[in-house]
Amino acid sequence: MPITTVGLDADDTLWHNESIFRLTHARFVDLLSDRADHDVLESRLAEVEQRNLRLYGYGIKGFTLSMIETAMELCDGEAPPRVIREILAAGREMLGHPVETLAGVDEAMADLAERYRLVLITKGDLLDQERKLAASGLGDLFVAVEIVSEKDRGTYDRVFDRHGTGAAEAVMAGNSMKSDVLPALEAGAFAVHIPYHVTWAHELAEAPENHPRYGALETIADLPGWIEKAGLRS
Amino acid sequence: MPITTVGLDADDTLWHNESIFRLTHARFVDLLSDRADHDVLESRLAEVEQRNLRLYGYGIKGFTLSMIETAMELCDGEAPPRVIREILAAGREMLGHPVETLAGVDEAMADLAERYRLVLITKGDLLDQERKLAASGLGDLFVAVEIVSEKDRGTYDRVFDRHGTGAAEAVMAGNSMKSDVLPALEAGAFAVHIPYHVTWAHELAEAPENHPRYGALETIADLPGWIEKAGLRS
Repeated sequence: MPITTVGLDADDTLWHNESIFRLTHARFVDLLSDRADHDVLESRLAEVEQRNLRLYGYGIKGFTLSMIETAMELCDGEAPPRVIREILAAGREMLGHPVETLAGVDEAMADLAERYRLVLITKGDLLDQERKLAASGLGDLFVAVEIVSEKDRGTYDRVFDRHGTGAAEAVMAGNSMKSDVLPALEAGAFAVHIPYHVTWAHELAEAPENHPRYGALETIADLPGWIEKAGLRS
Repeated sequence: MPITTVGLDADDTLWHNESIFRLTHARFVDLLSDRADHDVLESRLAEVEQRNLRLYGYGIKGFTLSMIETAMELCDGEAPPRVIREILAAGREMLGHPVETLAGVDEAMADLAERYRLVLITKGDLLDQERKLAASGLGDLFVAVEIVSEKDRGTYDRVFDRHGTGAAEAVMAGNSMKSDVLPALEAGAFAVHIPYHVTWAHELAEAPENHPRYGALETIADLPGWIEKAGLRS
């Protein structure tokens, strides 16, 4: 079967994202360094984020609210106004952060767009993801953009049915084993893991073993070649 | 031309929403009543919300962040921790608020779903809108759900092309003149205004005059009949 459609994750696949979150984490830890040590602050923030995912979903606005909540908890409900102001400012800065595509993205995407239908499939805040896509200059290459609240098997089934010719003729590529690779394989698509140098703990998962439709690449520059070979094999 | 597709707004068209925001406004005003009088507090909050729309978009998370920012401004940067905690809690409660469909919605939707393709078209937080749709029990009636960052002419063009047979054979119904009616008419669709008893100032606009594809209804119960007549006339 030919491959007709390529799904691409956005954050940390096409452009830097987690590194910006890490900078904000560092700023958060700095702000509260008189309350607890680094590891405690990080783990409390991770706990609150995880607990709030069900309520806030993914994205910077929910992350900002989780930082404020964590600061309150760490200060026994009495976080200094300065800390809250700094967290608000940090969230706003994240939402305005310049978009920097990863090495090799522009060339690989131009190449893929000539041969396949490209669909952007991402979590996060609606407006923020649209802003980043526009700023990346890649917007015109995609036939569709799907900003979703969760990436599970059903998501890939639905998206590749709607915008392509079904999951069996589609490849999903992204930096998250948990969100991009495993559920896409479950849906019957090919899936390629292209790790970013840091991964949010929530997105970690084991790689599949000897899966015939799975690949791992060091750089997106190798994606067009991988897909071509996969199409010939299948 | 037959009408094939009906777009429906969600908040304040299918279920109560603005009334929940108003309750939170009242709580916000209460919290800061020692800082300024009612009208000043309301207008400052509206200003900050409006200013932040470009950054946060629509929805409860952005509204919560705007309340915190407004509280900071009203307290010269020194909002008491109790106020911040209360605002965080108010935002969380909004996100967990039970969904209550408006009078006549269940019957009208069941009727429409038998005759047309129904598409939900709404702004707001992704996860929160999905939660409300699931809780409303109306989810299965829609062939598609589009949660969008802005409702303009292009939005309706795209959505009615993708999920229907184009805007000319579609009707959009909702409580916002600005977001549901005017841009849908511009796109060439029919549009029906069904006002809610309160409207967010941001969504106010003048009704079109003598527009052949525009209607105003007092209740969604009259929508199936209106659409049938519009289809015969066109």
